[in-house]
Amino acid sequence: MKTLSDTLLNRRTIRKYSAKKVDDDLLNDILTKGCRASTTGNMQVYSIIITRDPVKKKELAPFHFNQKMVTEAPVMLTFCADFNRFNLWCRENKADPGYDNFLSFFTAAIDALIVAQTVCIAAEAEGLGICYLGTTTYTADKIIESLKLPEGVVPVTTITLGWPDEAPEQPDRLPLEAIVHKEVYHDYSKQDIEEYYRSKEEREDSREFIRENNKETLAQIFTDVRYKKDDNITFSRILLKVLHDQGFMHQ
Amino acid sequence: MKTLSDTLLNRRTIRKYSAKKVDDDLLNDILTKGCRASTTGNMQVYSIIITRDPVKKKELAPFHFNQKMVTEAPVMLTFCADFNRFNLWCRENKADPGYDNFLSFFTAAIDALIVAQTVCIAAEAEGLGICYLGTTTYTADKIIESLKLPEGVVPVTTITLGWPDEAPEQPDRLPLEAIVHKEVYHDYSKQDIEEYYRSKEEREDSREFIRENNKETLAQIFTDVRYKKDDNITFSRILLKVLHDQGFMHQ
Repeated sequence: MKTLSDTLLNRRTIRKYSAKKVDDDLLNDILTKGCRASTTGNMQVYSIIITRDPVKKKELAPFHFNQKMVTEAPVMLTFCADFNRFNLWCRENKADPGYDNFLSFFTAAIDALIVAQTVCIAAEAEGLGICYLGTTTYTADKIIESLKLPEGVVPVTTITLGWPDEAPEQPDRLPLEAIVHKEVYHDYSKQDIEEYYRSKEEREDSREFIRENNKETLAQIFTDVRYKKDDNITFSRILLKVLHDQGFMHQ
Repeated sequence: MKTLSDTLLNRRTIRKYSAKKVDDDLLNDILTKGCRASTTGNMQVYSIIITRDPVKKKELAPFHFNQKMVTEAPVMLTFCADFNRFNLWCRENKADPGYDNFLSFFTAAIDALIVAQTVCIAAEAEGLGICYLGTTTYTADKIIESLKLPEGVVPVTTITLGWPDEAPEQPDRLPLEAIVHKEVYHDYSKQDIEEYYRSKEEREDSREFIRENNKETLAQIFTDVRYKKDDNITFSRILLKVLHDQGFMHQ
């Protein structure tokens, strides 16, 4: 097992996996560690759906925009905000649950994400590789149908998991001082922004993205190609409808 | 430094801290590890506000319901969903950001929570103790004012951080099979619920809670005392208004 410093500092997202199986015992060990993470009032208002079946992966693939990791990774884990189990327990015990609102959804989403990241770190410490799929929130309605998630359950993120078959370069990060604020938020000057983003803009891969996409600046790659306003609005509507349909918008 | 297995498996939330300072270098090291965590499209749409000033802690305390950790811990970290910095960069670079919607808020919240949990694990590996404050989403409006968070920035969680001055019992967790579903969600029978929650209900501290609060079941402690419907509805309204006011509900 890697040291924790090495695990955290030298990590990179892995999108290409070897054919080697992820053992059930190892997966259980990693998930057990995940469930030791902090959880609101020890309610554990989350569930984890394990996908190993190739047929199921193929069914889920389009909801993750056919990113190849979905069908190629031995394991997918979908982390869900889940008040269903807790509500059932309340109703069995003469208690009237008041968790059908936005605050409760967000509480459960926080729980699910804290577990997800703990599972990722536990996996990476074993030498496994992971990749987060942001697509989960874009197509939550389809994923709910495919994974048969009942009312009170919403998928918030998915990871693919497997033994690495690539050793990609570590991506850049903004300097820590761009992220951290002391005591109060200090808004950014034009100069701050230029300084903090300069090395990202000067990377060869950034310049290539700009050329390939016929754009003028790296920021335009994000706004015009990767994370477009129209898509964000469409996905926002779907996600808010999902929260409504799964019973989290009664107020 | 602890091993990762030990860090993850034997952790507990720490609410009582010694007077020992948390060194700036150590804090920077932990935050640097946190910022190596996965982030959507490498956008790093989060910020971390460090609170060390006792005056600021006192100001923030009521927004965290005067939990004593807030004023007693040497450090508080408030993790925020932050599209402000990214939007400024876009606008400086002839790019029109379309991140003023619910999907973008949730994307940034995921980013912030993944970093928060990575920071917690990095801290715990050094022997530090942490406690998550769920109150952040209840009083986000007040925290925004106190920490001077601009449009595009919403606090999603806070942790207190310091050297442990207590060694509490490790709390119970549901069995892993209560959390995990294979391929599709398998809804819970009455018998499943009884079995999964039995040991929680039978704990001496659970029985004492019930007696103290004059309730009939443990579930009623949650629904009638700790996480009440009326409060959840009030906090939901505040949180949705915050998303609106911080510019995340245009669609």
